[in-house]
Amino acid sequence: MAFEFKLERRVEFSETDAAGIVHFSNFFRYMEAAEHAFFRSLGHSVMLKDFDPPLGFPRVHADCDYRAPLRFEDRFEIHLLVREKRAKALSYRFTFRNLSIEPPVEVARGHLTVVCVTHEADGRLASTRIPSALADRIEVAPPEAIA
Amino acid sequence: MAFEFKLERRVEFSETDAAGIVHFSNFFRYMEAAEHAFFRSLGHSVMLKDFDPPLGFPRVHADCDYRAPLRFEDRFEIHLLVREKRAKALSYRFTFRNLSIEPPVEVARGHLTVVCVTHEADGRLASTRIPSALADRIEVAPPEAIA
Amino acid sequence: MAFEFKLERRVEFSETDAAGIVHFSNFFRYMEAAEHAFFRSLGHSVMLKDFDPPLGFPRVHADCDYRAPLRFEDRFEIHLLVREKRAKALSYRFTFRNLSIEPPVEVARGHLTVVCVTHEADGRLASTRIPSALADRIEVAPPEAIA
Amino acid sequence: MAFEFKLERRVEFSETDAAGIVHFSNFFRYMEAAEHAFFRSLGHSVMLKDFDPPLGFPRVHADCDYRAPLRFEDRFEIHLLVREKRAKALSYRFTFRNLSIEPPVEVARGHLTVVCVTHEADGRLASTRIPSALADRIEVAPPEAIA
Repeated sequence: MAFEFKLERRVEFSETDAAGIVHFSNFFRYMEAAEHAFFRSLGHSVMLKDFDPPLGFPRVHADCDYRAPLRFEDRFEIHLLVREKRAKALSYRFTFRNLSIEPPVEVARGHLTVVCVTHEADGRLASTRIPSALADRIEVAPPEAIA
Repeated sequence: MAFEFKLERRVEFSETDAAGIVHFSNFFRYMEAAEHAFFRSLGHSVMLKDFDPPLGFPRVHADCDYRAPLRFEDRFEIHLLVREKRAKALSYRFTFRNLSIEPPVEVARGHLTVVCVTHEADGRLASTRIPSALADRIEVAPPEAIA
Repeated sequence: MAFEFKLERRVEFSETDAAGIVHFSNFFRYMEAAEHAFFRSLGHSVMLKDFDPPLGFPRVHADCDYRAPLRFEDRFEIHLLVREKRAKALSYRFTFRNLSIEPPVEVARGHLTVVCVTHEADGRLASTRIPSALADRIEVAPPEAIA
Repeated sequence: MAFEFKLERRVEFSETDAAGIVHFSNFFRYMEAAEHAFFRSLGHSVMLKDFDPPLGFPRVHADCDYRAPLRFEDRFEIHLLVREKRAKALSYRFTFRNLSIEPPVEVARGHLTVVCVTHEADGRLASTRIPSALADRIEVAPPEAIA
């Protein structure tokens, strides 16, 4: 059972914008990268191709609050916490810390809510229960971790 | 005085992902594109280079709720409304409608809050008042428009 | 029969990088956007879903030479020319002109070669003939246009 | 003195497209990421901010030939070789190998040519000699490595 995951990255040049900082939309790509690495750490891909019909986890909510910028080549940590777990949905909180500053400082905080869906043959998405092989390995973070 | 702006686009292939839909992070790029087109419609660039030191509008908050996917080549509308206007900050609401479906359907709704800053010589960002040349042309949308 | 297409765009903020210019990789996205608009102008999507198995056009070659940068909000033109047409492949040349400078100046020139493939049920891509419904509407640009 | 560098990555979801494979433009971002990691391995950032005026390395040429696709979560290697070294320019060759297939297979091969420039106060870029602190640590790969 796991309720958190930490991923370290370094800002790449293609992630910056003409203001000299990471484009704000890329924090959402970082959140997703941490979620997928969390799934892999549990022995699963976020693309659950072994199921028929195949399952996926589209996002139904995303938010981020930005306190300070990240710049090219900054090393930073993405800390994922499982905030909520329902039969068909998961909600995460992410905190970003800039590790290139001493002491490291929190630069952003965000959330994703994802829903488990089947990809039907006609292209429609239909919500479905998270497979127990995955759900049984995920638990909600204790209140003191989320505070 | 303006409180809204509408921008039409078509989904590009590079904006989709392996789930066959627009990657959720790109809705934030669409929001920003609508904001910048709104500024241009008022006779200003969002990069206020004519000021010394130069001004910018980094994002301090971004969120989006997704109801339905957009797919490659879908035509869609981004509707920007000014939700809040303060001395140093602006807050927008964005609604996305898929125009390739009849009747058009709302697929997502989101918000951005941006703060006016100066780019100091040492790289720091310091919040500052929105120049009146711009602020005087923007007003908050009436309650009935935001409902 | 068509052998060329012109598309106008404006540089978006998310396409720039910390050097203050369009990230070089985005010129390839611009080329593809022009190709897809060219296909639409001929009455077709580049995603040929009406065929069974569905067809696609993965890129087998891409190149670009950069002479001058594009910057945020620059208006520019992408000029596509069909350079070569074979049974299963198309090759294009693209020239980029910055329209925000007077007189407009060529800033980049590139090429794409794409191959028509079927997406097999097992995920493999197999090259196939371009459907005549599309191929019959495309011709190679005359030598004087490419010079 | 160094003439090569190897970087391992895993394909992220935001790098894929609706064809289910890595978008071709992202191979250029991968090349650049390998170049920057190569520079860091030599003790330098590609953003040479310690010089006055600051130096940069815009790309003047980029190309890539694609033999097979990369898919979500594939592990792959980017192998950089220094192909040419001039007073003001560097040229690299990159080979991509998919490590998720046994045995690993080359999926793409590309090149970048970059020029050292100063960012002048008026925004112009002017080519300049690569600083010896960096140039002295880079050498051209031997012919047998490039073959």
